Amino acid sequence: METKIPYKIYLAENEIPTQWYNVRADMTNKPAPLINPATGKPLTHDDLAPIFCTELNKQELDNDTKWFDIPEEIVNFYKMYRPSPLVRAYFLEKALDTPAKIYYKFEGNNTSGSHKLNSAIAQAYYAKKQGLKGVTTETGAGQWGTALSMACSYFGLDCQVFMVKCSYEQKPFRREVMRTYGANVTPSPSNTTNIGRKILAEHPDTTGSLGCAISEAVEAAVSQEGYRYVLGSVLNQVLLHQTVIGLETKTALDKYGIKPDIIIGCAGGGSNLGGLVSPFVGEKLRGEADYQIIAVEPASCPSFTRGKFAYDFCDTGMICPLAKMYTLGSQFIPSANHAGGLRFHGMSTTLSQLYHDGLIEARAVEQTSVFAAAEQFARVEGILPAPESSHAIRVAIDEALRCKETGEEKTIVFGLTGTGYFDLVAYEQFNNKTMSDVIPTDEQIAESLAKLPKVPGLE
Amino acid sequence: METKIPYKIYLAENEIPTQWYNVRADMTNKPAPLINPATGKPLTHDDLAPIFCTELNKQELDNDTKWFDIPEEIVNFYKMYRPSPLVRAYFLEKALDTPAKIYYKFEGNNTSGSHKLNSAIAQAYYAKKQGLKGVTTETGAGQWGTALSMACSYFGLDCQVFMVKCSYEQKPFRREVMRTYGANVTPSPSNTTNIGRKILAEHPDTTGSLGCAISEAVEAAVSQEGYRYVLGSVLNQVLLHQTVIGLETKTALDKYGIKPDIIIGCAGGGSNLGGLVSPFVGEKLRGEADYQIIAVEPASCPSFTRGKFAYDFCDTGMICPLAKMYTLGSQFIPSANHAGGLRFHGMSTTLSQLYHDGLIEARAVEQTSVFAAAEQFARVEGILPAPESSHAIRVAIDEALRCKETGEEKTIVFGLTGTGYFDLVAYEQFNNKTMSDVIPTDEQIAESLAKLPKVPGLE
Repeated sequence: METKIPYKIYLAENEIPTQWYNVRADMTNKPAPLINPATGKPLTHDDLAPIFCTELNKQELDNDTKWFDIPEEIVNFYKMYRPSPLVRAYFLEKALDTPAKIYYKFEGNNTSGSHKLNSAIAQAYYAKKQGLKGVTTETGAGQWGTALSMACSYFGLDCQVFMVKCSYEQKPFRREVMRTYGANVTPSPSNTTNIGRKILAEHPDTTGSLGCAISEAVEAAVSQEGYRYVLGSVLNQVLLHQTVIGLETKTALDKYGIKPDIIIGCAGGGSNLGGLVSPFVGEKLRGEADYQIIAVEPASCPSFTRGKFAYDFCDTGMICPLAKMYTLGSQFIPSANHAGGLRFHGMSTTLSQLYHDGLIEARAVEQTSVFAAAEQFARVEGILPAPESSHAIRVAIDEALRCKETGEEKTIVFGLTGTGYFDLVAYEQFNNKTMSDVIPTDEQIAESLAKLPKVPGLE
Repeated sequence: METKIPYKIYLAENEIPTQWYNVRADMTNKPAPLINPATGKPLTHDDLAPIFCTELNKQELDNDTKWFDIPEEIVNFYKMYRPSPLVRAYFLEKALDTPAKIYYKFEGNNTSGSHKLNSAIAQAYYAKKQGLKGVTTETGAGQWGTALSMACSYFGLDCQVFMVKCSYEQKPFRREVMRTYGANVTPSPSNTTNIGRKILAEHPDTTGSLGCAISEAVEAAVSQEGYRYVLGSVLNQVLLHQTVIGLETKTALDKYGIKPDIIIGCAGGGSNLGGLVSPFVGEKLRGEADYQIIAVEPASCPSFTRGKFAYDFCDTGMICPLAKMYTLGSQFIPSANHAGGLRFHGMSTTLSQLYHDGLIEARAVEQTSVFAAAEQFARVEGILPAPESSHAIRVAIDEALRCKETGEEKTIVFGLTGTGYFDLVAYEQFNNKTMSDVIPTDEQIAESLAKLPKVPGLE
């Protein structure tokens, strides 16, 4: 007899994970190492030490340790907003009239509005433990910057955020949240760094780019005593911290004896997707269970589905290490019409390897269909989802409708990474029917991929 | 031995209240009846029927029924976002270094961003049950309009929101949330009503007022077949629905054997305060327990602390019934510098009577100190509070600091009614130190009170 499942499965506070799970330890084909572009050789601890926190570098490079203890201070902070609920989407199921059972893990119930806080607090903790004064970072849409501001405020660390100038001006609310948490927010490019001054001299009217903001943040970190640079996605360490999402999801499902058939997550750099699916991928890797795992990316920035598995720079500015990943080329910029987030040209090396090995699959969706799913979801489930999260909603609805056709009672779990309160300009476009889909042509992608770096020994 | 209290006390879904509690039934001195300004006589069901839903009118006028069953459809909707957590503010206690124990009931974890949804869903339900096509309302800041949009979307009701024009233009994000939920949002004054056209003809450049928006919403309701008008605060029915807040709070406290010494809520029209404190006031009225209950209002709109207990219009437009309440006069408008919400000139009749009888006390606080409390709270507790809610935070912190001085280990409970994601213009003023306090002079209040209506037999 099936136990009646509540609308929201809340775990107890003592069920918050006390260890992060490192899926790389269970992978036979490990993700390819990061490469120092200057030498063509794998990056070492020493290469990374001036830029990133020491303890985080260890996590970054460690492909063998399966479990990392979560420090008690971080678990205590997690108690502020975790465990996050696993919600049974009864209202959505009813609206779709589907036999599928749909669940979503909701990470939006904190002021950063997303899952980003899970890693921000860990990175701030290790920076504090190392005795640093502060950290620098870049932010585009602002979720990561907000999360980092909150984490730094908690540990009394200085937080310097380089915010892409057009976002700084167009998203003043995001900026003010960060300032309320005490962060120093600088529009990028700025005249506070050499690279910023150089770009401003060459392009005085530029509205900035993420690539430029990364460059400024890295320069600010290495040029100030007691500072390091931190990053909110793509890196192994970030995926590691985000496994609290997947571990809690698994605990909640196990508690009610639920075995998912399909697990769906949106994919930009991979932080949410990796965090959600790692424990399930681990079971697949160990031959303990099988799941269909779907990464959902925007059709306007389709790194998995139309990119190449190759070494590439992680940033547009080409100052970061080379990573072997599915990439559209570091110079690829999604159409200006793209409002739906997930605009990174590449993908986490770990997820890239898993995709390459057939452990996860990928699907690209167009943004108008994403916002239609977001609106449908909001109206029945009550939560206004972030555009990024809505990519996962789109495919969850598609799969549930497929179940309606076939009569299959599949169990679908997706990650609802955050809320859309700061994305209402995009919702307004959708409401006003002025939103369009722009899909890159084969020629555009080929042109961008032609610029992939040539590194000796890596061809 | 004290049970270890978790950070967040979550009740189970079957602990969501199934009845609303009507504190009027326990009051010896009942709130004075609403008066028809045309006749000077108490309003009857028949007077109210063309404007409000029938079932809601019953709740409005019933001073005797102690418990109202919550229809199952409403309880099911509540499960979307309730029970709401009762949070132990361990981080704030530590930051204040106080022996006080602080708890807050957090109502912000839903897309409306506030407790308003508790009543919106009830009002939409009764409208649907009555076979109506839709409802009309006004909204200023937008919390109520958002909540009502969500509720109407759920029941497939048309939702017409008259939004004060300056808010419509300055808060496009609020507007877009409502539109995403399918509401029809009209800037007020508009040319869709007689009163709107009249005002526009006389004052073509007006940016609108809540009084005008109420007038338009009422006209739209009575002039369309199958429509009624709904309101998000002040009314007895709204306080009744909001008692889910206080009932859940009491259940959670009882579960851990916690007896609060002080209960604090912000007070605008009284919907949150009444909902939070009703069950506790009930115990006081029945002589079962004693609590210090504090209503917190803005110093710029101090209806309890500087108003008069008298019959007055509920709206600036003077078309609504007369209510006996603490009021600054229906023509009182808080200073334009006031950014902190809670700008209603009067107060719920029930709370007014309770205050008059000494069962609750009141305190007025200045907005810069309110935002300072909000910032302090956000930085340690992680939630960005609404300005309204932050009035309660201010006094909770003040009381906790008083405990630090005296060494008393008091237990303080306050209502955290919502989040501040759509109030960042006000936060920006605070961050930029351009926010000021403007307290009305005695002369200003006296002048406004001199305009109180003269109704025969009510002097």
